[in-house]
Amino acid sequence: MPVSILLLTLTASTTLESEMLEDTFRQILTDVDRNIHLDSWSIGSDELTPGSDTRWRIEKDVLHGGLQEGVDRIRVNNGVLTFTIIPTRGMNLWDARCGDVRLGWDSPVKEVVHPQYVNLSERGGLGWLTGFGEWINRCGLASNGAPGVDHVPSNTGASVPVDLTLHGKATYLPARKVEVIVEPGSEAGSSKGKPVIRIRGIVDETMMFGTQLRLVSEVSTIVGSRTLTVNDEIQNLAATEQEFQLLYHTNFGTPILGDGATFIAPALRVTPRDERAAEGLERWNHYGPPTAGYTEQVYFLELAANSAGDTEVLLKNASGDRGVALDFSTRGLPYMTLWKNTAALENGYVTGLEPATNYPNNRNFERKNGRVPVLKGGESHKMRLSMTALLSEQEVDQAAGRVQKLLGGRETKIDPQPVAGVSP
Amino acid sequence: MPVSILLLTLTASTTLESEMLEDTFRQILTDVDRNIHLDSWSIGSDELTPGSDTRWRIEKDVLHGGLQEGVDRIRVNNGVLTFTIIPTRGMNLWDARCGDVRLGWDSPVKEVVHPQYVNLSERGGLGWLTGFGEWINRCGLASNGAPGVDHVPSNTGASVPVDLTLHGKATYLPARKVEVIVEPGSEAGSSKGKPVIRIRGIVDETMMFGTQLRLVSEVSTIVGSRTLTVNDEIQNLAATEQEFQLLYHTNFGTPILGDGATFIAPALRVTPRDERAAEGLERWNHYGPPTAGYTEQVYFLELAANSAGDTEVLLKNASGDRGVALDFSTRGLPYMTLWKNTAALENGYVTGLEPATNYPNNRNFERKNGRVPVLKGGESHKMRLSMTALLSEQEVDQAAGRVQKLLGGRETKIDPQPVAGVSP
Amino acid sequence: MPVSILLLTLTASTTLESEMLEDTFRQILTDVDRNIHLDSWSIGSDELTPGSDTRWRIEKDVLHGGLQEGVDRIRVNNGVLTFTIIPTRGMNLWDARCGDVRLGWDSPVKEVVHPQYVNLSERGGLGWLTGFGEWINRCGLASNGAPGVDHVPSNTGASVPVDLTLHGKATYLPARKVEVIVEPGSEAGSSKGKPVIRIRGIVDETMMFGTQLRLVSEVSTIVGSRTLTVNDEIQNLAATEQEFQLLYHTNFGTPILGDGATFIAPALRVTPRDERAAEGLERWNHYGPPTAGYTEQVYFLELAANSAGDTEVLLKNASGDRGVALDFSTRGLPYMTLWKNTAALENGYVTGLEPATNYPNNRNFERKNGRVPVLKGGESHKMRLSMTALLSEQEVDQAAGRVQKLLGGRETKIDPQPVAGVSP
Repeated sequence: MPVSILLLTLTASTTLESEMLEDTFRQILTDVDRNIHLDSWSIGSDELTPGSDTRWRIEKDVLHGGLQEGVDRIRVNNGVLTFTIIPTRGMNLWDARCGDVRLGWDSPVKEVVHPQYVNLSERGGLGWLTGFGEWINRCGLASNGAPGVDHVPSNTGASVPVDLTLHGKATYLPARKVEVIVEPGSEAGSSKGKPVIRIRGIVDETMMFGTQLRLVSEVSTIVGSRTLTVNDEIQNLAATEQEFQLLYHTNFGTPILGDGATFIAPALRVTPRDERAAEGLERWNHYGPPTAGYTEQVYFLELAANSAGDTEVLLKNASGDRGVALDFSTRGLPYMTLWKNTAALENGYVTGLEPATNYPNNRNFERKNGRVPVLKGGESHKMRLSMTALLSEQEVDQAAGRVQKLLGGRETKIDPQPVAGVSP
Repeated sequence: MPVSILLLTLTASTTLESEMLEDTFRQILTDVDRNIHLDSWSIGSDELTPGSDTRWRIEKDVLHGGLQEGVDRIRVNNGVLTFTIIPTRGMNLWDARCGDVRLGWDSPVKEVVHPQYVNLSERGGLGWLTGFGEWINRCGLASNGAPGVDHVPSNTGASVPVDLTLHGKATYLPARKVEVIVEPGSEAGSSKGKPVIRIRGIVDETMMFGTQLRLVSEVSTIVGSRTLTVNDEIQNLAATEQEFQLLYHTNFGTPILGDGATFIAPALRVTPRDERAAEGLERWNHYGPPTAGYTEQVYFLELAANSAGDTEVLLKNASGDRGVALDFSTRGLPYMTLWKNTAALENGYVTGLEPATNYPNNRNFERKNGRVPVLKGGESHKMRLSMTALLSEQEVDQAAGRVQKLLGGRETKIDPQPVAGVSP
Repeated sequence: MPVSILLLTLTASTTLESEMLEDTFRQILTDVDRNIHLDSWSIGSDELTPGSDTRWRIEKDVLHGGLQEGVDRIRVNNGVLTFTIIPTRGMNLWDARCGDVRLGWDSPVKEVVHPQYVNLSERGGLGWLTGFGEWINRCGLASNGAPGVDHVPSNTGASVPVDLTLHGKATYLPARKVEVIVEPGSEAGSSKGKPVIRIRGIVDETMMFGTQLRLVSEVSTIVGSRTLTVNDEIQNLAATEQEFQLLYHTNFGTPILGDGATFIAPALRVTPRDERAAEGLERWNHYGPPTAGYTEQVYFLELAANSAGDTEVLLKNASGDRGVALDFSTRGLPYMTLWKNTAALENGYVTGLEPATNYPNNRNFERKNGRVPVLKGGESHKMRLSMTALLSEQEVDQAAGRVQKLLGGRETKIDPQPVAGVSP
């Protein structure tokens, strides 16, 4: 055997072994209980799987200047898919990219605004919108949905009116603990041996005489994959019963959204939120071009799921060769809302695919309709969703096929009348 | 004389002298006027009184991560008693420890929350509770007590309604000047020659066309002592008359608070705040175990004092061998409130001993009842309180004896009716 | 020729040339898009024009401690005039000094308060006053003036009531981009060859479903000059129409303001804001001494301007030998308000000269009176004002002469009745 071939064999062998991470790697980035907070840190294939054919990297830094001063950022590149997590904003996902597809949108808000610059009460409870710019935004934990009055018990035990603000506080709460985990991949499956990257964060929404909820969040991806998965848990930290709400505000603009783009879902029922949504009912899942002066249209959906409770929806571009598939467990997220806002590009041309524990009406309205879950003291609630970038017509068609299979030939019932009693 | 004895004598002599600090030591930690702010600093017996038999230390650092990002902390260990002061939160005392006694409590709020994350207007004016976790919390300076409407003059001279928020702003105002002083001890007294540690801080609550009050605060302790003393002054910085209010929210959970713990006070009169408090009137100064669903009970007290105006109360544990004594001057703090909140441990099992310039009703109600003090332009108001850890049955009994002596055989009048007109 | 004279000649020649900066110098201090933020930086004549006879300097630093923690500051000394710009507070000018004249005032607010410590909604919408202390404060961008209810479109297209807060948000918005430019001086004019210092900053007031306005600001001064000039532009970043408002709250206390000081303006009409202002109508442009309990008096002015639309006003001290001249373009700033607040020194003895796009009534009132400008999508609006320190009787008299010339012998109409319908 000539020397060169021997070397090649050795190299290949080395690559394979080194890609298979032996031990789980763990790094704490923030831990409030131990007064730990790393400003700058990174690790990747160069250090952990040298010689692997997929180069991946995780980088932590802090943003500076203007409204971004002091914002923590974690950027993950799994070799194929890149995405950004913002620990300072409830572990939300700021944006992502896979090949030529950007997942996210162009908000009028150009900065990753630090919570210190957001007053949720502003503008009649719409202050949340002064920082809204992310791809995946968790709305919760105590409430989400439209601003307006609800009643809560005060310290004296009296029921007092409070002005709930749009989409709750979670987006502007920093994580108390942030950890990066890189695990050896499993031997089985299409990605055998590829490491798994997990970014975990704990976000508390707590106070004396009030909300005591904890979000234990995880975003994970397999090196080289086009998919990321969110596995979240909400815990009741109190000894007494508590309500909670969570909605995943996942938002898409160009290049997937465009004139002729389509939303495809195994919808058993579609209900317009208001008269404005009812106007567009015939084309509820089709999108037009950016339109100055467009007013949002919102549809509440009931989706079919498989026997495990999982369902899938997708958004595809006009030519049907790019898209994104969103699959999630309806056991944790039984309701889904579609937000259409094809306004001018400058004003925010965007659509929101929003699986949730409820519809995004004011909590008071949702409670009356039996859609506000309750946790007993110490109990918790799990939620899962996955996002996959679709980079070819074939992938888009396969996803659409899975959706059709979930529907199983059933018809989509379209309610002509909007939901009654929804706060505006 | 053998050499070893000679050495011993010399060592003893050296210890005595070195413990007696010659000159006053001063260190500025923060001074806004000079743009000074030290992130990290410490000093102690090793540097100032080397060889002393009591090792003490003062450490300044900054907390990082999550809701604690940027919070200044000063930790004092006088050799026997340790405590923490938070300049970022109005020089409040976060917690303390002496032997096996922890002074403080376990709040649902687990972080030393930075003011940037607190919106006092939240939840109907109860936003103060989103950061409430400390042992001694100053409620003021312009107002304290229940949230609700009061009227203040606007810039145009008109009387305008404002929504006062729970317990005012002082807890979430950072100190503009912070100084550490270590003084030589006095020759007299039981602690002769022991240095005195003083932590001074200035906190301004000011604005154009409104409140212009300054808190000049000092927390002091003698090295080796089980006592710390708060000496505060509120100054009217304006040329015109101003009201002010201050309440010391001193809070205790386990291990002193527990089923069977007792509050002992030279109470001349006890008035329940509301019907809920009236329910528990017979056992107003006794505590039960942590109880899920317990609603707070609040009692307004009139206390006896000695000829100098000083009074004393104590909280003792069930077995009567641990406790804390609180003595204060009723000249500066004429009113006292007892807050009982024996809720579940997870929800905040705590009692508050609250000497103040008033009762913690809304300022509007307190004004009508003549309990809102006024300072003329340039005037000031002084307040003093001391906390002493009681570590044996004997110490607890001695404190209880002092309380009995203050009462001097007078009876405690118990009002059966709650206070009328208190905002809920 | 002796050697020493030759050397002197060379030096003089070198000085002249070196003062004439060859190329434009540019330095980015903050750029959010590139995650740039310099904590500390400076440059001046020593580096750029060594040997020049006018020594100038630009210094950037960050304030620390208390309410100032994290505030960016730029100090400019052009050799004659010094001033401070605060990028963290909308590029506002904190104070200035020229010879023995201080431009600015003594507010009850002693710190350069960081926006994180300001809640605009506080005290019935007067929270802006908790940080108010600067010499030149921009009130805007979406609104300025008195707090109170106005209506705006919500995300659903409904018109919803919002509580506008005093003087809008711009003062508490940090700049997203800050740049220092030093340009070669022009050959012409009295300051030929002197470099021009420009401090540029971009401040965005943006949100989803709401305000999308950008302030592109510039403060410039010629080295060795007693004048600084503000050139600002407001841009509509949206595709749709937007209202905007801007008011320059320029404030003066001692030493210019004092008993006997006078405001001189080419006023065609003076209207008292309310009954309180009407009381002082006869002496509307004269000032008394600091007076405890004084309530503000506010006058709305219509000014004469030259054919280019420029006008000028001045404030002079009692002896007429010190003052400040303010000239501005009425094309961008058609309205002017005079704020008299000769309260006690401790409470804020101050007068405000306030050119603006409107009078500082609530926006709702201004809209009804046709004084709220509108920008179409992508449009912008320019504003200019200059401040000049007057250091002698001659300079004061010359300025007063220019004002007289603008008036051109026309009479000042004094409205006896206050403005009707103004919110208090």
